[in-house]
Amino acid sequence: MAATNPDNAEDLIEQIITVYGDDGIEAVVTLLDELHPADVAHLLESIPPEDRLEIWQHIDDDRRGETLVELNEGVRNTLISETDIHALAAAVHRLDTDEIADLIPGLPDEVIAEVLFNVSLEEREQLNEVLSYAEDTAGGLMDIDAVSIRPRITVAVVRRYLRILASLPEYTDKLFVVNRNNELTGTVLLSDLVTADDEQRISEITNTEPRYFTAEQDELEVANGFARYNLVSAPVVTEDMHLIGRITVDDVVDVIQDEADYRMMASAGLDEEQDIFAPVTQITRSRAVWLGINLITALVASVVIGRFQDTIGQLVALAVLMPIVASMGGNTGIQSLTVVIRGLAVGTISASNARRIFFKEMLVGSLNGLIWALATAMITVLWFDDLQLGIIIGAAMIITMTSASLFGALLPVLMTRYGIDPTLAGGVALTTVADVVGFLSFLGLAAVFLT
Amino acid sequence: MAATNPDNAEDLIEQIITVYGDDGIEAVVTLLDELHPADVAHLLESIPPEDRLEIWQHIDDDRRGETLVELNEGVRNTLISETDIHALAAAVHRLDTDEIADLIPGLPDEVIAEVLFNVSLEEREQLNEVLSYAEDTAGGLMDIDAVSIRPRITVAVVRRYLRILASLPEYTDKLFVVNRNNELTGTVLLSDLVTADDEQRISEITNTEPRYFTAEQDELEVANGFARYNLVSAPVVTEDMHLIGRITVDDVVDVIQDEADYRMMASAGLDEEQDIFAPVTQITRSRAVWLGINLITALVASVVIGRFQDTIGQLVALAVLMPIVASMGGNTGIQSLTVVIRGLAVGTISASNARRIFFKEMLVGSLNGLIWALATAMITVLWFDDLQLGIIIGAAMIITMTSASLFGALLPVLMTRYGIDPTLAGGVALTTVADVVGFLSFLGLAAVFLT
Repeated sequence: MAATNPDNAEDLIEQIITVYGDDGIEAVVTLLDELHPADVAHLLESIPPEDRLEIWQHIDDDRRGETLVELNEGVRNTLISETDIHALAAAVHRLDTDEIADLIPGLPDEVIAEVLFNVSLEEREQLNEVLSYAEDTAGGLMDIDAVSIRPRITVAVVRRYLRILASLPEYTDKLFVVNRNNELTGTVLLSDLVTADDEQRISEITNTEPRYFTAEQDELEVANGFARYNLVSAPVVTEDMHLIGRITVDDVVDVIQDEADYRMMASAGLDEEQDIFAPVTQITRSRAVWLGINLITALVASVVIGRFQDTIGQLVALAVLMPIVASMGGNTGIQSLTVVIRGLAVGTISASNARRIFFKEMLVGSLNGLIWALATAMITVLWFDDLQLGIIIGAAMIITMTSASLFGALLPVLMTRYGIDPTLAGGVALTTVADVVGFLSFLGLAAVFLT
Repeated sequence: MAATNPDNAEDLIEQIITVYGDDGIEAVVTLLDELHPADVAHLLESIPPEDRLEIWQHIDDDRRGETLVELNEGVRNTLISETDIHALAAAVHRLDTDEIADLIPGLPDEVIAEVLFNVSLEEREQLNEVLSYAEDTAGGLMDIDAVSIRPRITVAVVRRYLRILASLPEYTDKLFVVNRNNELTGTVLLSDLVTADDEQRISEITNTEPRYFTAEQDELEVANGFARYNLVSAPVVTEDMHLIGRITVDDVVDVIQDEADYRMMASAGLDEEQDIFAPVTQITRSRAVWLGINLITALVASVVIGRFQDTIGQLVALAVLMPIVASMGGNTGIQSLTVVIRGLAVGTISASNARRIFFKEMLVGSLNGLIWALATAMITVLWFDDLQLGIIIGAAMIITMTSASLFGALLPVLMTRYGIDPTLAGGVALTTVADVVGFLSFLGLAAVFLT
């Protein structure tokens, strides 16, 4: 048996990169043929753009389409812009309708025209159907290759029908049972079909309460449903229960991975689809915006400190200690923010218990505020030999950590209500508040009581 | 057809919570019966501990085991500790061997003993096999219910065999072909089996190069393999290719979701398995450690500032502006850190291109340093009417942002080498470095040139 442990594919890719670097393209052409399209995509994402194009030119036509589907958007776009229009149309044309639908938004108009001209009328209608739903809905995610059968026929008839089809679409773990109006009435598991008797009716082995999704549902709801009910495939229906397609677990795995990627990258102001080999100027520009926003929030904090220049001038120890208050507030708030963002995403936090959670987060924040305020106060007294300063930094920390945790808990709910994504903007907003409250409370208390 | 859109399950759960709150347990008992065990788990995670126990007592025995499997660890442990030992053993005993294996680490010894006493000898051997592998390996993840067949028999024989089995394990999209030594030689797709002719030999429809995993492989490698090659199930073998089990996509979805959860929560110092309704003291304690570490890093920054008290005393504007330098450094560094952590995780960054990426990140950091140093310098000159101060803050920002981005790119590689998880510790380490370099360069330059 050949080396098909996925770990070996990694080794093969590393080998190709090394051999290619040493001996050029001729030395790796035969190795490229051994790669799965997903591995080709991975290889292309791991090498610089100049090498990428040369390797791309040596990928067979019939694997280019699949490779495009697997590539991340940034890398895909550079390849699309460098590839001949007819070659591109030929590669795309070989794909399944739902894959074509995924690629279309990124293709040049000429390529779309050529692809649409070459597909069958039926495929064109299916394409229009899929493209009519937003990309991040069940409709946008669905394949249109659902195999449907009628309830009254026997198992033997279905077996004959499937034999005529010769091969079933990937991830077919169930067939969809529809009435004469193409309304979904149930599903039949393939494993039940294999083990059923020839003369049984389909209705006898039908699950009449299958999990299904409606075309307009959000893809994250779909992903949650697949994860919760351990689905391999599920039917997609219109509002009036007409079967229009199916969603398969591979697409759901992609949704979950993309969402995780997005969450990780967006919280640092990064674009998760960016090619790591994109030109330095392009990367710099895409990150600059985020840093600019951060500069503004840092300036807000500076303005607050600026109001207390006289106070600091009289007691420089304030400047030494003030970052502690802001930083502890920020970290406490981020903890509450993260807990609530996640609770809302998985659904353990909802209208019925939100108030309780807010209260609890605030309590946890103030308790931790108390603990670390005491520690910090003691350190301050030992360091600066100033009891009053210790009391003031302690009080400021309790105020800052309590309000930061309450604000961190409220923020995701407020932002979601106004259509702002808390994953993207929550951290910045929270840090600003923690800085402002931290500097204001510490320096303000000092101004009143110490100077 | 009943309401089986997963969205409706959410509604039903909300309804149960409301009705339960208004009218007590009797009013919701019949509603509970409509819930899938995964939904019961979700319900239990969404209500406070005191209600949880009352609802748990009204869950049928035959759904309690499945519910335990679906619960997060924190909630599961509280229920386990509150449930009678015999009831617990009865609930667990009904589960599949691999599910029992998942629960065993959290069960009291008496329950484990009772469960092991009640299973068959064969199941006990299988349990020992699964438990002999670490939880986060392919072996720990696998089910032991792989259906294997021999290559020489005909399709008709296999169909008869499956009919005798009556039902196939969930997610059976393929059967495993083994020789007489139980060595894996290929796989047969169920969909090929449905459509094949009775008299065909299994060897004719066998894929002789199936993707497989070895028992010791890390679960994240398994997840990457499933995602990349769109697998529903895959065989698990020993080093010498003996078939010992299979992994199914539902477990892989759990691995991917758990990993995403872990990444999100760990980066804020949170335990992703903690019950959101855990007692306030318990939550406070679990978060306090992280805040304590943060306090130490904040104190390090304060010590650096403390060295420059005289300088600040002479020019208080330094105290006003210094948080800007540290904050911009921190944000730039976090961007590089995040890009590299993710590149290492998905494999686009490896030994062959690491140096190039480090250099690039440093370049991006210094370019953005240049842009925002100019902006900040101008703002400083306008604000404080001090050209020298503007030049110094600009220089400090370029130094800090360049070194923070280089450090952010190097850190994940260094930490991984020494067995430290960069997701958990990377942010803290980076912030400390950005603070120290930021305060040191800004105040240091000011001490030399301004005072």
